[in-house]
Amino acid sequence: MSFFEKYSDTVQRNNSFVCVGLDPDPAKLPEHLKGKSDPTLAFLREIIDATRDIACAYKPNFAFFGAQGIAGWEALQGAIQAIPNGMPIILDFKAGDIGNTAEQYAYMAYCQLGVDAVTVNPLMGTDAIGPFFAYQNGCAFLLCLTSNPGSADILRLNTDQGVLYEVLAHKAVEWSQTGPCGLVVGATHPNDLKTIRAIATDLPILLPGVGVQGGQTNAIVQNGLNKKGSGILINSSRSILYASSGTDFAEAARQSAEDLRQVLNSARGGKR
Amino acid sequence: MSFFEKYSDTVQRNNSFVCVGLDPDPAKLPEHLKGKSDPTLAFLREIIDATRDIACAYKPNFAFFGAQGIAGWEALQGAIQAIPNGMPIILDFKAGDIGNTAEQYAYMAYCQLGVDAVTVNPLMGTDAIGPFFAYQNGCAFLLCLTSNPGSADILRLNTDQGVLYEVLAHKAVEWSQTGPCGLVVGATHPNDLKTIRAIATDLPILLPGVGVQGGQTNAIVQNGLNKKGSGILINSSRSILYASSGTDFAEAARQSAEDLRQVLNSARGGKR
Repeated sequence: MSFFEKYSDTVQRNNSFVCVGLDPDPAKLPEHLKGKSDPTLAFLREIIDATRDIACAYKPNFAFFGAQGIAGWEALQGAIQAIPNGMPIILDFKAGDIGNTAEQYAYMAYCQLGVDAVTVNPLMGTDAIGPFFAYQNGCAFLLCLTSNPGSADILRLNTDQGVLYEVLAHKAVEWSQTGPCGLVVGATHPNDLKTIRAIATDLPILLPGVGVQGGQTNAIVQNGLNKKGSGILINSSRSILYASSGTDFAEAARQSAEDLRQVLNSARGGKR
Repeated sequence: MSFFEKYSDTVQRNNSFVCVGLDPDPAKLPEHLKGKSDPTLAFLREIIDATRDIACAYKPNFAFFGAQGIAGWEALQGAIQAIPNGMPIILDFKAGDIGNTAEQYAYMAYCQLGVDAVTVNPLMGTDAIGPFFAYQNGCAFLLCLTSNPGSADILRLNTDQGVLYEVLAHKAVEWSQTGPCGLVVGATHPNDLKTIRAIATDLPILLPGVGVQGGQTNAIVQNGLNKKGSGILINSSRSILYASSGTDFAEAARQSAEDLRQVLNSARGGKR
């Protein structure tokens, strides 16, 4: 099944646009798990189990695994295995390199780790993105306007083709003729999201930055939905993962994910 | 020892600006190594051993290790250990993410893997770069104008502050007030390098793209050197690693690195 098929299925089945970000920070794990042989994986298994009927996708953030070396890589593989079949998995890596290197990153994501999509940094241009398109069942989520304050430094520069993030949105539409792609737009920029959705009418948009980063959910949903009333993945990581640091962390994570699902579905103005 | 101290030392000691890129592609390894329990590491150990008195730095490319999963991670660790003490190691990762994630990548590079420098993608702005500056002995090599054809797509856009790659060079100079950084400029763009060196007079410049990618060494050296006649690292990966696919691969790699050293030193107009 392709990323797009999985995404449509889980949005429908779980009535949800909630993407659960997996950013396991050893310092923030519940105390009672710290004695386990693999606390990160034990933690993530419970998080996944508690949110599997609420999420539309999972997004493991490579940095938090890579920082733990081989143990982290094992935890990443274990977490990917623990995610139910049919649920789309987006590897958050911000990959971006020349063609022969990008091929290796695409292989790492799609073959070695077996995820369904990967975030990609478009700064290096067409041939840095092309190798991801060789995986027609995947999806390359291209950075467009990120959630952080520093996104203003470069991504809001005025170019002779428009503001840089708009140029990137146009490029993505062009690139989507070649292979499956989407956009990453910070949930902290609801007005810009409207502009971006007007450019990229059909691309899926991954929106990190609700919760800890303070994105405004109502405007985000209304401005992000495509004409079919879908096409968004609203990612929350820390607000879900660390909703409680006690033995009830999984229950609290479930409640946080459920709260977000409800808020998003209300904003959608539809059933839930 | 800081990256800068190591770099100055090895440039002096080995009379070299040759950075050896470690991009181990399983498909390209010499046949006689393929039966070994860890052919990648066996290969890299011989490459490192054959070039240790010729290189000024080594640059392992994460993609080629990540694509091999845990075995790749082990090979990366092994290769880093095999590099002589005092020789600077640049992790080529093109890291770029929001602050709390960038912290993890910086930790991965400097603490988990123990390298001396890392390549960083500046698209996400100041707070995506800041965490790398916490490691004052390190060096964040920021993408400025990459070697690939696609670099023209985004990095050559005209902005109201100048061509994007020039804007990035100016930003890097500004950022260098906060923490140690350098630039990545493709050796395929000798004229632009002149412009960039005029902006970033003191930053070290990593220049990939000679050899297979066809960069012009003479102009690169002349336009890249700083006022002290240093400040460049000219990376070659495939031309060195795969100079021969036979049992003489290490000898051939040495010869290729030595040839490059000589060409660069002639261009420098000095002794070798």
